Order: sequence, then structure tokens, then C-alpha cells
Amino acid sequence: MNSPKIWGIACVDWPTGSLVGLNVRESVKTLGQMRGLFQNQNEFERMDLNTIIYRVQWLAPVPDGTEGGLFWGTTVIEPGRVGDEYFMTHGHFHAKRDRAEYYGCLEGKGMLIMMDTARRTWAEGMAPGSLHYIPGNVAHRVANTGQAPLKFVACWPSDAGHDYEAIREKGFGARLFERNEEPVLVRTE
Amino acid sequence: MNSPKIWGIACVDWPTGSLVGLNVRESVKTLGQMRGLFQNQNEFERMDLNTIIYRVQWLAPVPDGTEGGLFWGTTVIEPGRVGDEYFMTHGHFHAKRDRAEYYGCLEGKGMLIMMDTARRTWAEGMAPGSLHYIPGNVAHRVANTGQAPLKFVACWPSDAGHDYEAIREKGFGARLFERNEEPVLVRTE
Repeated sequence: MNSPKIWGIACVDWPTGSLVGLNVRESVKTLGQMRGLFQNQNEFERMDLNTIIYRVQWLAPVPDGTEGGLFWGTTVIEPGRVGDEYFMTHGHFHAKRDRAEYYGCLEGKGMLIMMDTARRTWAEGMAPGSLHYIPGNVAHRVANTGQAPLKFVACWPSDAGHDYEAIREKGFGARLFERNEEPVLVRTE
Repeated sequence: MNSPKIWGIACVDWPTGSLVGLNVRESVKTLGQMRGLFQNQNEFERMDLNTIIYRVQWLAPVPDGTEGGLFWGTTVIEPGRVGDEYFMTHGHFHAKRDRAEYYGCLEGKGMLIMMDTARRTWAEGMAPGSLHYIPGNVAHRVANTGQAPLKFVACWPSDAGHDYEAIREKGFGARLFERNEEPVLVRTE
């Protein structure tokens, strides 16, 4: 039997998390697609709605919804703010609420904002090497608080699914603003 | 509300996968603990049984067996052979058979050996940046085919569990030997 030739499902460039492979999927989120998520609506309307806020590359080796499988992804969030509020991901609960997730920060600086089902909201600092466990039943969103792109890898169950709606309707219980050049999590309810 | 201070559950040194944090668990597997797993028993008995074959660091943020949770780990396999057979991990099925796993290679060179429940055995090359998806119902073992330690990260469901017994009894359907300085997967049944 000869040496096998297959080198896994993709290649990760660890310093950046960038994925290369035949089955890598990609999506881009622009500011215009995030209407209603930032607090300062006036500032939002003044900005270029084509601004890219974040990009995701991911691998789904089994169909979405498969129990026992896992997905892997890399997210890159651009630096910037809408008013005083940092560029951030949409944020979501998992549709199957008890599913957990790992985030591992590779590059940049940010905050992982989490909220439980009672809307208690807290955050963890992200910096290269920080590894974050998002327990089940906890909504999660990441904000870039630095001057450069924030890059992190993620791994989550293939039956987790995404519930974006709960966040679109009511947001998180707190927002991350820049105050005196520092990120501050401010309760908004 | 002040800026939060918590930086996740651990820090990963990405070039090596090394984990630092209060809740990092560690285990070491010596040659002596792997009796019966390598083919060449005579050669095995001639070697120092205290030789470290591999080390694992891992994080278990929820109790073993929790549905929906995830564990994270780093494995370091030393270079070497027992006769012509490369140093390798014990290998296991998941106790909950349909649970998947990711391996991401950081450093070194090796082979991920996989076997389905029909004992069909195959392998994927591991090199820095190679990302591997181990589907459910597939036993997995890693061999170091290089001259330096092989280091990789892993992420798996917290209810996957480990079934080492099936491998201890019957092994995989093939073994990875060095032949003319190249790794070759040889059917053994």
C-alpha cells in the first residue's frame, strides 16, 4: 500500500486563521446588512453601507443539523466604530440552545460579549492566544477594539444552528463603547 | 460598568499549542503503558519503558459526558520508532460512536490513521497547517513520522468519551511503518 496523499480537509494559516481548501465556504457582512444592531442610528446612516464589517470562512464537512459533527471557522472583524460603538459581529444564540463553542484568538484585540438567557451580559478580553469557551445557552458576539483586523478561529457542533432573530429583536443586555480610548461594557437595559 | 478583566479559559501558544491556565489538565503516556500496541514485541521489550511517547494537555470546562459541550486539547508526540513502526498515540473510537473531532497540525510531520467500524483503515498526512476532520464512527490515531515532536490541537464533543478497549484488543486494520525512509501504511489483516 502506498503512502496516502490526502492532507486533511483544508489548510489553516495559523498566524491569520485563513483557510485554503476545496470546501471552504465564505461570507461577508457589510454595515448595510447590520441595520438596527448599532445604537447610534444617525451615525450609521452617515456611513458607507458597503463597508465590510467582518468576513467568515468555514468548513461544514457534514450537513447542517447533523448530531455529533463539528464545524470549523475563521472570523476576521475589521477595526472601526459606529459612533462610539466598536465594529462587531451580529451575535447569536445557538438554535439548539445547549450547544457550546470555542473561540481562539490569533491576531488583533477585542472583546467576546456573552449573554445568558436571563439577559445577564458580560465580556472577556481577546488577544493573540486567548482561548474562550462559550457555554451552552449563552449568546455570543465579538467586537474589535483594536486598530487592526481581529482574527479568531472557532469550533462548534454541526447541530448548533444559529438564532440571529433573538439578537436582532432585542440585542444584548450591554454594548461595548469606546470611552477615553478604552472599551467599556455599558448596560443598556 | 468597568472593562472586564477575564481573558478566556486559557492561553494557547499557537506555534506549539501549549496551554497555560488554571484548569489545564495534563497526562503523559509512556512506552510501558502501550504494551501490546506496537507490532514488534521483541523490540518493545528491549527499549526503555519509561520513554515518553506522547503528552496531552486539555481543557474540560464542563463535566465529561455533558451533551452539547466541547473539550479542547493539545497533543505532542515524540519522534521515534519501535522497530520500524513509528511512535503513535493509543488511538480510540469515541464511546458515543457518532461524535466527530477536529485535529489541526501546528508543528512536525505525521499521519492521522483512521479506521471505520468495518475496520477499513486509511491515513492523512499531517504537516503544519493541515486541518483534519475525523467523522463520527471512525477510530483515530496519530503517528509521528518526522525527526521532531509532532504537535496538534484538537476539539471534540464533551459527551464523546473514549473507547480505548476496542483498539487495545484488535488494533487498527493497518500499521504505519518506515520503509526506505518513507511512511507506508501496511494492512495487517
